[in-house]
Amino acid sequence: MAFLFNSDAARGAIFRKAFACELPDLEFYHCSENFDPEKVRYLLTWSAPDDLSRFCNLELLFSIGAGVDQFKPETIPGHVKLVRMVEDGIVRMMQEYVVLGVLTLHREMVAYREQQSRGVWQALATSQATDRRIGFLGLGMLAQAAIDRLKPFRFSLATWSRSKKVVEGVACFHGDDQLGDFLRGTDILVCLLPLTEQTSGILNARLFSLLPAGARLLHVGRGPQLDQGALIEALDSGHLAAAMLDVTDPEPLPESHPLWSHPKVIITPHIASVTQPHSAAQAVIENIRLHRAGQNPIGLVDRALGY
Amino acid sequence: MAFLFNSDAARGAIFRKAFACELPDLEFYHCSENFDPEKVRYLLTWSAPDDLSRFCNLELLFSIGAGVDQFKPETIPGHVKLVRMVEDGIVRMMQEYVVLGVLTLHREMVAYREQQSRGVWQALATSQATDRRIGFLGLGMLAQAAIDRLKPFRFSLATWSRSKKVVEGVACFHGDDQLGDFLRGTDILVCLLPLTEQTSGILNARLFSLLPAGARLLHVGRGPQLDQGALIEALDSGHLAAAMLDVTDPEPLPESHPLWSHPKVIITPHIASVTQPHSAAQAVIENIRLHRAGQNPIGLVDRALGY
Repeated sequence: MAFLFNSDAARGAIFRKAFACELPDLEFYHCSENFDPEKVRYLLTWSAPDDLSRFCNLELLFSIGAGVDQFKPETIPGHVKLVRMVEDGIVRMMQEYVVLGVLTLHREMVAYREQQSRGVWQALATSQATDRRIGFLGLGMLAQAAIDRLKPFRFSLATWSRSKKVVEGVACFHGDDQLGDFLRGTDILVCLLPLTEQTSGILNARLFSLLPAGARLLHVGRGPQLDQGALIEALDSGHLAAAMLDVTDPEPLPESHPLWSHPKVIITPHIASVTQPHSAAQAVIENIRLHRAGQNPIGLVDRALGY
Repeated sequence: MAFLFNSDAARGAIFRKAFACELPDLEFYHCSENFDPEKVRYLLTWSAPDDLSRFCNLELLFSIGAGVDQFKPETIPGHVKLVRMVEDGIVRMMQEYVVLGVLTLHREMVAYREQQSRGVWQALATSQATDRRIGFLGLGMLAQAAIDRLKPFRFSLATWSRSKKVVEGVACFHGDDQLGDFLRGTDILVCLLPLTEQTSGILNARLFSLLPAGARLLHVGRGPQLDQGALIEALDSGHLAAAMLDVTDPEPLPESHPLWSHPKVIITPHIASVTQPHSAAQAVIENIRLHRAGQNPIGLVDRALGY
């Protein structure tokens, strides 16, 4: 019975140490080593290897990232459990990035960056946090954790999710029927949706038109959710005031892409949240224990929903 | 008995309304109106008017800002109580700005801004919050409030103040003897000191040399505390990695000043925190009540310390 780590050697070494201590009965292989694929019960990887059928005794397929859109779920045998990465390190980094992004957009840092480039010292009017409505598209664990950090600042908080959810102190909208009402009341839109057929291209001209004039976008979902041309048009028309993007399509964004030099856009290279090896190893070990005890692992993907 | 509002008319109108409701016995004047200076017991202003001696019955002199360095305390009669602005709005805005600044420096946003200007998509190594040591120079109410917001992110927190203080979960240094130890253990230095003779020029080459290589500066104190030339040298030598400045000397910073275009510097035009008229009016009203009841107002300046 073996665990295969199909990613970089540096993080692999940290996993190996943790596994040796916590699951000594389990053989541990890095993908650079010789191993018998039939022995592999657990595989950790960014995306499914081409030759997945070799792993005929595979039980758990762990994504090293928080999303699983890079897998083609239809190619993964039905009895294999596909598991998202749910670990403290990812959550904490996303909390930091979302608070950073919301405060950046709330406190006019995009406009101040532009003023700095011209040597202009000019205070800009700003709303108080209580008058600034932050709307989350997507209400998974990462969004809920980010909301926890934003609450003390007294922002007005709302969320939109596919199915009905309840979060204390937050206006929760759900379903297609309520998307318009949600958007009309959102000054800073935070996209934390998983990438699925339904969410691909969701950030488009029609959606932007439902946001109030002067709204801002913080995009920490996945690149293909955003119509980048529509974003540039909405910024250039003045309907949207600013955007901060951690994901683009494609990635890396080509050097010549107009988003790079847009004065109303801040771009970071998909660094909002990165799996942290120490805490991720503990999370995977805990999931193997749950699985061996006949329980579902934390982060189990619903194949029908795609996340 | 009268209150004189010596600042802009817009905020004055908000104060007037609050005073009419809460202190109807007190005459209220805006500086643009005719009034008898001998009637003025309470004066709210940014700095002392030249003709302060006209106000021969003045009891309380309120600063409209959080600092009082713009007053020349020696010109104010000893029996007049000088009062800093202590109000919720200032505190909340400073909490936002300090969290924004610390996260900006923690998550390498200065380097990402530079990469964006060249169209470069490159993830940079970053520390976890638990490994990032945030050090506050100055531990007044604003610093304590900012620390409250930073704690949930699990940063390693330290402070340095003139006299000994204790804050739970924070390493508190004090006095000249402990300044070196404090600086040697600080990765992101946040200056929230009041401007006094002792703190003028405190952020200089010698202080920077005591910070570890790669340290960052968030300056939200007062412009004259920083030796701007020494900062540029420390950034250019690579000893300091980045700086975010909300205050400069002079203000406004001249258009031609090299700080504007420095790739490792973010500048905002003294907007970290601004007195909010609604909450400020309530704070001033409450202080007048305390004074009338024979108690000291909140924010009373110690003339010997200068803050």
